[in-house]
Amino acid sequence: MTSIVELIARKRDGGELTAEEIHRVIREFGAGQMADYQMSALLMAVFLKGMTDAETVALTEAMLRSGRVIDLGHIPGIKVDKHSTGGVGDKVSLSLVPIVAACGVPVPMVSGRGLGHTGGTLDKLEAIPGFRVDLDVDKFARIIGEIGGCMIGQTAEIAPADKRIYALRDVTATVESVSLITASILSKKLAEGIDALVLDVKVGRGAFMKDLERARTLATALVRVGTRAGKRVVALLTRMEEPLGRTVGNALETREAIDVLYERAPADLVECTEALAVEMVRLGGRAATQQEALDKVREVIRNRSAARKMEALILAHGGDPSVVEHPERLPQAPEIMTVTASSDGWIGAIDGLEIGLSAVAMGAGRTRADQAVDPAVGIVVRAPLGARVEPGAPLADLHVRTREQAELIQARVRAAFRIDPQAPAPKPLVIERIES
Amino acid sequence: MTSIVELIARKRDGGELTAEEIHRVIREFGAGQMADYQMSALLMAVFLKGMTDAETVALTEAMLRSGRVIDLGHIPGIKVDKHSTGGVGDKVSLSLVPIVAACGVPVPMVSGRGLGHTGGTLDKLEAIPGFRVDLDVDKFARIIGEIGGCMIGQTAEIAPADKRIYALRDVTATVESVSLITASILSKKLAEGIDALVLDVKVGRGAFMKDLERARTLATALVRVGTRAGKRVVALLTRMEEPLGRTVGNALETREAIDVLYERAPADLVECTEALAVEMVRLGGRAATQQEALDKVREVIRNRSAARKMEALILAHGGDPSVVEHPERLPQAPEIMTVTASSDGWIGAIDGLEIGLSAVAMGAGRTRADQAVDPAVGIVVRAPLGARVEPGAPLADLHVRTREQAELIQARVRAAFRIDPQAPAPKPLVIERIES
Repeated sequence: MTSIVELIARKRDGGELTAEEIHRVIREFGAGQMADYQMSALLMAVFLKGMTDAETVALTEAMLRSGRVIDLGHIPGIKVDKHSTGGVGDKVSLSLVPIVAACGVPVPMVSGRGLGHTGGTLDKLEAIPGFRVDLDVDKFARIIGEIGGCMIGQTAEIAPADKRIYALRDVTATVESVSLITASILSKKLAEGIDALVLDVKVGRGAFMKDLERARTLATALVRVGTRAGKRVVALLTRMEEPLGRTVGNALETREAIDVLYERAPADLVECTEALAVEMVRLGGRAATQQEALDKVREVIRNRSAARKMEALILAHGGDPSVVEHPERLPQAPEIMTVTASSDGWIGAIDGLEIGLSAVAMGAGRTRADQAVDPAVGIVVRAPLGARVEPGAPLADLHVRTREQAELIQARVRAAFRIDPQAPAPKPLVIERIES
Repeated sequence: MTSIVELIARKRDGGELTAEEIHRVIREFGAGQMADYQMSALLMAVFLKGMTDAETVALTEAMLRSGRVIDLGHIPGIKVDKHSTGGVGDKVSLSLVPIVAACGVPVPMVSGRGLGHTGGTLDKLEAIPGFRVDLDVDKFARIIGEIGGCMIGQTAEIAPADKRIYALRDVTATVESVSLITASILSKKLAEGIDALVLDVKVGRGAFMKDLERARTLATALVRVGTRAGKRVVALLTRMEEPLGRTVGNALETREAIDVLYERAPADLVECTEALAVEMVRLGGRAATQQEALDKVREVIRNRSAARKMEALILAHGGDPSVVEHPERLPQAPEIMTVTASSDGWIGAIDGLEIGLSAVAMGAGRTRADQAVDPAVGIVVRAPLGARVEPGAPLADLHVRTREQAELIQARVRAAFRIDPQAPAPKPLVIERIES
């Protein structure tokens, strides 16, 4: 039998591994017969030589089968989830799950925590008093059956090989490989028991992917590989230069997500949420056309059934559902300090990366996986893209624990706003739609 | 400060690391701050993206300084060593060290053991009753001062970083990188306290490097990098299709090396030994021209001062010096079985790789580093390249423990001899000489 070293050598030389060989690699890695240092050498070879779609499908399935695959077969309907590659201010999941569930499509969602400049859905949910994200898989399935949606964190049972491999990639400079990202995302999502998946591949300064070409390559790979793995998959490439919406920080973002359900959220956040909801409702078989899906999505928002669904979801997770009608009950920072403009003109750009890193520096996010986050702190953009400002006009509010904290960060936040002599041309949020 | 992950990423993307960064990598790896899995990812990136000469020099020096650098400054003369990349039947070091020492050039030699199809100098020396290769560094230096040469194994004190990195490369498919091989060889050799180095880069079926172009690239890199590290370096590219000389197996090879000192060895082995000795004597400043060096080499053989030097060397290592005059006192296998030709013609090729692997299968070598070897067993070629044979003529003698052992291996040995309808054209042993 071919040795693990020979398999590493074949990939190193640009060759292809068979599905059986990839399953063996994941199996032996899981059993401790293939060492971490061998896996990291293989990961670097994959990073530099790539993998074919067939290899990526095999890796996805091998990692998926390294743990438990949730069976939602007893729940009627087409189960659809959404995955975002992450961006600054991306709180879409929090309103999307109740909206889509209110449209009759079951949504089983396993989310992550924030790391680096992008936040995480779990941290935002935990800003709601009492909200538990660490439900076990049986409870997860039961809640989906009862209310149509549930949002938990990755458990040790789901794709454990992915978890170990991701930890290795993080410390060996092998994160940004299209094949490895694709297999990592899909193995976790396929383990949820979904039938279809909508992907939000964000691109720009505030996103994980900064470059359109690379984001398109990833989106296309995700759709192709997901389709080969037997799921219906649609990907939207969405623009993420500025933060999405006006808030960055956990409780602030949760509040803004609730605003979507009450028709008082910023237009870009509404547009992004609606675009993704429409795809999910269509894949879930609850609408025949885009227009019919959009009408349905707007109806469940207008008639507040999405808001009621969010309350049910919070209750099922042990949280306080009154925050939906009373978002002022979410944690609030003791101090608010306003950053002002020093010149006049139009807001031509807001650097999402800098805003995201500023929020992390304030305590809203983490630079190491074991850090705690402060739910109350964050940044509220007051002069969004295209706004007219004069010297002294507010650019952003910093929600902080202490004024000293704000003083350390304010210059950085001010510098993130570019003020131009003329108004910027509007740019579409959805850049491209990719379907197999 | 740049993180280790950022350094891995830079090499992954084809960038260059500074000397300071490479020293830091080796330092943090040695101190356990850089994990094995990070080193193996970096090694794979180096394998695929290469290193500049400046990087290779820095890696060489960093690995060299990870341990003790032997100081031979108190010994007069220019200290010269030889390193061979290894080949089947390569017993040159055993006669080369006494010859060159007898010419007045001190030779500090740290050698390796056999692994895979190529044998190791230490295993051959240990075929001499009582011979100890595990002398400590102080004794090594003293013996060189006293008799002009000493041959030990790599101690834990010499280039420990290379030892750990080599073990990782072996199990992560990152052995055959020119930069890594160069740094590995030179770090160990430079730690011996040498002033100059002669390299025997062997190329062909019986060698580690099978391909001329790759061998030339390695030889050139060794000369360039060694020169940049402040040493005088000459490399010979030598042909290694057939086994060198007529014997493969530890005691058999030791005996054949002694034959060189008594002018009764096969021509190819003599030619190789003389060519390397000439380079060492010239680098050691004991001859102004190639011809003068060759005359000196032949003189110390003819007047037996090289044989006497070998006795002194064996004695210094605790061995029985009488084997030089009485090589029949070396271990001998109880059975000899002859493999014969089944057709007539000329020996057109002898597959060095197959002969080497056959000897390993008989117990003369090892497939894992922790195996013991049998000093007595081996193969003696009786029909060398160009010999005329008829059906039933002897091709080789198998020196074995049992006849059953010989029966298992004889078909493989027979198949290693190619019998052609005409005599092969003679090919030169030394293909190329490379000097900075």
